Amino acid sequence: MARTLVIGNKNYSSWSMRPWIALKATGIAFDEVMIPLYTGEADKRRILAFTDSGKVPVLVDGDVTIWDSLAIIEYAAERFPKAQLWPDDVAARAHARSVSAEMHSGFAALRSECGMNIHRLIGPKPLSDAAKADIARIQQIWGDCRQRYGRFGPYLFGGFSAADAMFAPVVQRFRTYAVELDPISQGYVAVMQALPAVREWTEAALAETLVIPRFETD
Amino acid sequence: MARTLVIGNKNYSSWSMRPWIALKATGIAFDEVMIPLYTGEADKRRILAFTDSGKVPVLVDGDVTIWDSLAIIEYAAERFPKAQLWPDDVAARAHARSVSAEMHSGFAALRSECGMNIHRLIGPKPLSDAAKADIARIQQIWGDCRQRYGRFGPYLFGGFSAADAMFAPVVQRFRTYAVELDPISQGYVAVMQALPAVREWTEAALAETLVIPRFETD
Repeated sequence: MARTLVIGNKNYSSWSMRPWIALKATGIAFDEVMIPLYTGEADKRRILAFTDSGKVPVLVDGDVTIWDSLAIIEYAAERFPKAQLWPDDVAARAHARSVSAEMHSGFAALRSECGMNIHRLIGPKPLSDAAKADIARIQQIWGDCRQRYGRFGPYLFGGFSAADAMFAPVVQRFRTYAVELDPISQGYVAVMQALPAVREWTEAALAETLVIPRFETD
Repeated sequence: MARTLVIGNKNYSSWSMRPWIALKATGIAFDEVMIPLYTGEADKRRILAFTDSGKVPVLVDGDVTIWDSLAIIEYAAERFPKAQLWPDDVAARAHARSVSAEMHSGFAALRSECGMNIHRLIGPKPLSDAAKADIARIQQIWGDCRQRYGRFGPYLFGGFSAADAMFAPVVQRFRTYAVELDPISQGYVAVMQALPAVREWTEAALAETLVIPRFETD
């Protein structure tokens, strides 16, 4: 049965990166279809053929269609329990879902001021207080997770989980905007950058030649 | 074992309303703690004592702590399968998770221009194109759900589900801002307003005397 993940440009589409990393890092097989974003009506229509939401990512798994990064991850966690996308322990799983959902609906200032743009090393830039608070909160989340679950492995909840996938684009932002991080966060960024799935996505992003001018001006 | 949902003002806190409705409408027992929002440092500290995120809602279930509306709902769906918070059918469940996650991370324009304020019948107001597009998309979601699943019951996926809880605050907004709706959406709004859990929340919101001045100015 065909399983297809529809994504946007790997260089820019942070929402697409999350489920892609979740599936890839846990060995769930899928084909991918990349539809370039902001190129015009034809590509918009291609996305609309998959989902009325008009947004990537979308997973088509046989006759089931799921859109939105977090919904795709919950679907995959349920459909492929062996992938262990959520931690086994009830309290750890609740914690992982909490930080994943906090990422999903929050951090608007960081997202708008530091858009994901993998190919461009922008360096430090002036940030609003709201964006600085976002960065502090993310480091607090990472530090808390690493202190609680660090003895089980190098990821947020020990072994790789969906929470790492949800924060994967933030790792890219911290790198390209040269954000100063505390030692625990520096270590976690290094672990995530070494994850084969993240390396594969990053290399593909760097190989893309399509540029979205509106994301190249700051 | 004690189960406590920490929420903000019922009049204003749309995020709190979602899990409260999900638990209440499906008969999951819980105590509630209401912490008024935007009153100052003391109440902020009360929230921080439950979660470092500093945000409501938070569910404390024995020794498990979960924050964020959608994470609480996923936790409850897993912990109380008899509540049937998600549809049984795989494709319907994927669909319900998709629209719930779309609500969770999206509709920023509608949310900022039409904040939930249950006690105040504001009436129609000029909206940005983005907010109008949000309203159109919500009606498209509701229409699609009702056409696919209407034969199974009056809610988005037939029987009540977490998706209805996720859209419950939007129903309040459409009422107080007198948003013009298509017939299917009008019918769905009426069904949601008649839901006992929604009535109970609304009556409690109307009985609140605390007013947040910044949300009373437009």
